[in-house]
Amino acid sequence: MLRCTAAAATSETQGKPIECLGAIAWEAKKPLDVTTIVVDPPKKGEVRIKIVATALCHTDSYTLDGFDPEGLFPAILGHEAAGIVESVGEGVTSVQPGDHVIPCYQAFCGDCGMCRSNKTNLCGRVRAWTGKGIMAADDQPRFTHKDSGKKIFHFMGTSTFAEYTVVHEVSVAKINKEAKLDKVCLLGCGVSTGIGAVLNTAKVEKGSTAAVFGLGTIGLAAVDALRDVGASRIIGVDTDPSKFERAKEWGATDVVNPKDHDKPIQQVIMEMTNDDGGGGVDYSFECIGNVGVMRAALECTHKGWGQSVVIGVAAAGQEISTRPFQLVTGRSWRGTAFGGFRSRIDVPKLVDRYLAGEFRVDEYVTHTLKLKDINEAFDLLHAGKCLRAVMYTDA
Amino acid sequence: MLRCTAAAATSETQGKPIECLGAIAWEAKKPLDVTTIVVDPPKKGEVRIKIVATALCHTDSYTLDGFDPEGLFPAILGHEAAGIVESVGEGVTSVQPGDHVIPCYQAFCGDCGMCRSNKTNLCGRVRAWTGKGIMAADDQPRFTHKDSGKKIFHFMGTSTFAEYTVVHEVSVAKINKEAKLDKVCLLGCGVSTGIGAVLNTAKVEKGSTAAVFGLGTIGLAAVDALRDVGASRIIGVDTDPSKFERAKEWGATDVVNPKDHDKPIQQVIMEMTNDDGGGGVDYSFECIGNVGVMRAALECTHKGWGQSVVIGVAAAGQEISTRPFQLVTGRSWRGTAFGGFRSRIDVPKLVDRYLAGEFRVDEYVTHTLKLKDINEAFDLLHAGKCLRAVMYTDA
Ligand SMILES: NC(=O)c1ccc[n+]([C@@H]2O[C@H](COP(=O)([O-])OP(=O)(O)OC[C@H]3O[C@@H](n4cnc5c(N)ncnc54)[C@H](O)[C@@H]3O)[C@@H](O)[C@H]2O)c1
Ligand SMILES: NC(=O)c1ccc[n+]([C@@H]2O[C@H](COP(=O)([O-])OP(=O)(O)OC[C@H]3O[C@@H](n4cnc5c(N)ncnc54)[C@H](O)[C@@H]3O)[C@@H](O)[C@H]2O)c1
Ligand SMILES: [Zn+2]
Ligand SMILES: [Zn+2]
Ligand SMILES: [Zn+2]
Ligand SMILES: [Zn+2]
Repeated sequence: MLRCTAAAATSETQGKPIECLGAIAWEAKKPLDVTTIVVDPPKKGEVRIKIVATALCHTDSYTLDGFDPEGLFPAILGHEAAGIVESVGEGVTSVQPGDHVIPCYQAFCGDCGMCRSNKTNLCGRVRAWTGKGIMAADDQPRFTHKDSGKKIFHFMGTSTFAEYTVVHEVSVAKINKEAKLDKVCLLGCGVSTGIGAVLNTAKVEKGSTAAVFGLGTIGLAAVDALRDVGASRIIGVDTDPSKFERAKEWGATDVVNPKDHDKPIQQVIMEMTNDDGGGGVDYSFECIGNVGVMRAALECTHKGWGQSVVIGVAAAGQEISTRPFQLVTGRSWRGTAFGGFRSRIDVPKLVDRYLAGEFRVDEYVTHTLKLKDINEAFDLLHAGKCLRAVMYTDA
Repeated sequence: MLRCTAAAATSETQGKPIECLGAIAWEAKKPLDVTTIVVDPPKKGEVRIKIVATALCHTDSYTLDGFDPEGLFPAILGHEAAGIVESVGEGVTSVQPGDHVIPCYQAFCGDCGMCRSNKTNLCGRVRAWTGKGIMAADDQPRFTHKDSGKKIFHFMGTSTFAEYTVVHEVSVAKINKEAKLDKVCLLGCGVSTGIGAVLNTAKVEKGSTAAVFGLGTIGLAAVDALRDVGASRIIGVDTDPSKFERAKEWGATDVVNPKDHDKPIQQVIMEMTNDDGGGGVDYSFECIGNVGVMRAALECTHKGWGQSVVIGVAAAGQEISTRPFQLVTGRSWRGTAFGGFRSRIDVPKLVDRYLAGEFRVDEYVTHTLKLKDINEAFDLLHAGKCLRAVMYTDA
């Protein structure tokens, strides 16, 4: 067994377990334990990746906070990262050691019933295993806690809070080597989701009006994409006014704090957009995870054609509701996962588009830390003071 | 003033009030009063129509039963009818006396913000008046109760439970004279709605799978259209098994009675359509007006692309709900009013398509009565024993 720290892929480690740092979530509501883990070599159809940079997203903290009833412990969390392929298992042909990659929590095999439908990005190929924190080849995880010898589960099929991880080949997007890994890691979840909700799910047309609820990473990415497609009105909504300056700089034409109004926010937006059809925006996006806001987001869209897209993930057991009349009079209620992007195919293109300057990525990185200080990133997230904190795995 | 009974348009009556039979709803939960009414001549932009046949739809009984909090009394109900233009008011150019027409509760002016959007059939031109039971020219109704001299409100801009009615020009669809008025009256609401939900709102493609909840007129029209577009699987759902035979004859490939199962109906349908993506139909249609069924209809659609269309009208104050995860994983929830058809433009085409044998209309007429016996039609409807009862206005 080799102690492996900073350097990227080497043929020395191939086929052998790797000892490295990993942040173990032993149980809900406890800080992560940054400790030595053993990462097994990739089996058939698997890829072992040296993680270079990983960001913290809400879904990680949602799970660590115990809100996900299906959350498994102990586990290595993390799903927004970029790295370099260290070695590949039997039969892997799409990537090779040295390739720059983004591990994707939503796989894309191109071959299962879901992928072949051409109507969704929700590949079903490895879902049965990623949902259980194990790998398809042998129903086992590839992580072991060194000291105790305990097996540690994978998370979302990615587990990027470690120096090395093992993922299914169908979950690996090979990207342009010119892209900085500590920036494009954000394309593994948040930024892609906000952009994709606008471009793929809602397919917003030039000149449309839109409201974006929540101006964190997802909401800002939606604002950025809306400006890019030429939306004529982009109303940013947040209860934290410190989010407004950046939103306006990025393209929001109006910003609204629901706390400044006595009326329900849907009514405020209806009045801001009043026309002879009763007012309302053409599109709205919920980027918070609050079921009450999801309702407001639907109800502030225009009668006849308004579309509302749910992006935020609500706490377990919570439900959305509205009067069916809202739908009968022509509004539609939709949702998106990973912005509708087919991960393995689309993430490489997103990286190229970012390199071509089509949308922002660097600007979301408000904090950088080392992996060993990851618990500080959770504190920043909870305090609402960061967009994205990026952790470097280098010692 | 002229007593006018059977015959169609005559120049004798033009410009004068007409005395004729009308069914007045004096208040909620009381039988209609079939009595003599006075119908004023059409003013600017209005059309007076001799109603030949009128059917009874649920929205009429919903209002008479007092479920519509905005229902106005006294009123002349009715909105599914066909007739002949008797006379026209100033400036009316699209129809002339003698034309065969269907009065449409959803107007289409082609010129308001809603119509010009080309994204909806919900014309807003006369909505402010039809919602108040009056006409746009002078904010007054055109009906008077002869005996008491009381003004009687219009209903849905149509008021077809009378020998004569006055409607706005934008609510009149001129149709082919070859069509039997006592059949195509059904294209004024129910049949068009069910067909349009499939063709316009969901835009179902050949080979798709679908579930239709409720096999009354609306549901059967949806089944008929689904068979016509070549849906590969059409699952009809009803709690009344007497509806199954006709549904199967018209194209349902499966029929399910939720009462025959212990599991929720959405789960039953998921299992019936199981595939490697978890099962579910591509499209579902709620044709009942039950908010619990609306939820089931959404939840039985396929992850990734399922679309559910709400057609049924729920009782006032009731709400639909679901877990937002249903939307985030790719389902969408929509609704339809008048099946998305732009009344004045599309109803004449529907009549031609019916004449060409493209879909059924005659078969929904399970009962025929005289207008004076209209209260019997309400009884039949409440007993769930009729699809459509058609009333003739001839004495
Ligand atoms: N569907 C997907 O594929 C997907 C992917 C990634 C993240 N998400 C979800 O998207 C959501 C947003 O993620 P993020 O990283 O941008 O979060 P964030 O916390 O950075 O941003 C949320 C913003 O909403 C604001 N807010 C909170 N309550 C509000 C209210 N009642 N009204 C208005 N504004 C309010 C906050 O001030 C904050 O600015 C989370 O629920 C996350 O889990 C979904
Ligand atoms: N959106 C629109 O533009 C529009 C237009 C016309 C009618 N509607 C509405 O459509 C609905 C259906 O109209 P219809 O004339 O076909 O009604 P209907 O009463 O003839 O048919 C309803 C059917 O649903 C069945 N049913 C009742 N409860 C059920 C349950 N829990 N599960 C399964 N089946 C159940 C009944 O047995 C019946 O066969 C009504 O709510 C009506 O107001 C809407
Ligand atoms: Zn995420
Ligand atoms: Zn797949
Ligand atoms: Zn009707
Ligand atoms: Zn109009």
